[in-house]
Amino acid sequence: MSDSSAEGVIDLLGMLAYGELVAFDQMAADARLAPDLTRRGILCEMAAVEIANYRRVADRLIELGVDVEAAMVPFEPALTAYHDETEPVSWHEALIKAYIGNGISDDFFREIAAWLEPADRDLVLRVIHDSAYDDYAAEEIRAAIAADPKIVNALSMWARRLVGEALSQAVRVATERPALAALLGGSAEGGGDAPIWRNLTTAHSARMTAVGLNN
Amino acid sequence: MSDSSAEGVIDLLGMLAYGELVAFDQMAADARLAPDLTRRGILCEMAAVEIANYRRVADRLIELGVDVEAAMVPFEPALTAYHDETEPVSWHEALIKAYIGNGISDDFFREIAAWLEPADRDLVLRVIHDSAYDDYAAEEIRAAIAADPKIVNALSMWARRLVGEALSQAVRVATERPALAALLGGSAEGGGDAPIWRNLTTAHSARMTAVGLNN
Repeated sequence: MSDSSAEGVIDLLGMLAYGELVAFDQMAADARLAPDLTRRGILCEMAAVEIANYRRVADRLIELGVDVEAAMVPFEPALTAYHDETEPVSWHEALIKAYIGNGISDDFFREIAAWLEPADRDLVLRVIHDSAYDDYAAEEIRAAIAADPKIVNALSMWARRLVGEALSQAVRVATERPALAALLGGSAEGGGDAPIWRNLTTAHSARMTAVGLNN
Repeated sequence: MSDSSAEGVIDLLGMLAYGELVAFDQMAADARLAPDLTRRGILCEMAAVEIANYRRVADRLIELGVDVEAAMVPFEPALTAYHDETEPVSWHEALIKAYIGNGISDDFFREIAAWLEPADRDLVLRVIHDSAYDDYAAEEIRAAIAADPKIVNALSMWARRLVGEALSQAVRVATERPALAALLGGSAEGGGDAPIWRNLTTAHSARMTAVGLNN
């Protein structure tokens, strides 16, 4: 592995670790929006999965002899901006953020995992979200829309805002971290035409359709 | 098992489940007070243990044919009041709350567990905190005091406030829930003289001394 690809892998793991840490924090806070204690408990459990994954990725960084804190810090501005700009104000917004936001982030890491050596690839694939929880979120969104179809437009707009913010922060990260961008096969620099962005937006559209949201 | 002791057990499990749910919420929020990302991650991991325990207790309630939500709701006022009155404003306060607050709550459930049938007793003993995390919190408090001994007085006062609030809410619960109080062998009604309170305060004093706080 060349020095620059090693640097790219550390960037990737640092971003993943910090992403899990703040996803935990946000989902734990969003759980307060739940309409009842049962649903609140489920979002808390989803949050707990993130922090278990944070531990796995941090342990791998330690194994690689990397300072975990130093590996995470560069990604603080972009990930904080993403969460600050997309703070849910209702239970439905929180659910859609968990479903759409986690979905696109999983796809992003899955795309990159393909370029990694087996040990890191397997780790990344393992920390991608448990689909049982994604299915739960999708089911709740479908039920909410079935009960009150007129919420579709506002929720679709919310989902589009989430994705716009996620992609804009991803581009920011790719610009700031050349070693990470290189790991994407230079595709991050290709803007909207690169295969990774095409794959991400196609999968995102399918997720929107699957729960009855408008693309 | 008599009807009233069955009711007491359901009360106990409902209180434990809700306690775990709000402990998760508070520790997840308190993690933001951490001075660095590594320490923040550890408090998040401690929070995640609470929600895993919540799931275990909720599953037991479901197994007993009990509505989990209905079993938890009676304890919302007391537990919310406890957390609202003891919101940490610094990392050290958060650590002491985790160490002292979890310690006294563990002791309380351990005392009661002795009166339960084996299945419930084992469950309660299993959800009592992982001592590895308690040791971590204790070690951090000791190190903070060693680095700056003049914080002892303020932190000792904070610890006493936590316990005062916890005991006052426990008495409130015992008054409101006679079946639960009966499970304590009527000792909750005995006020400060009952063996359970004596045991709790003795263990609490030992914990204070162990980290260098003044009783």
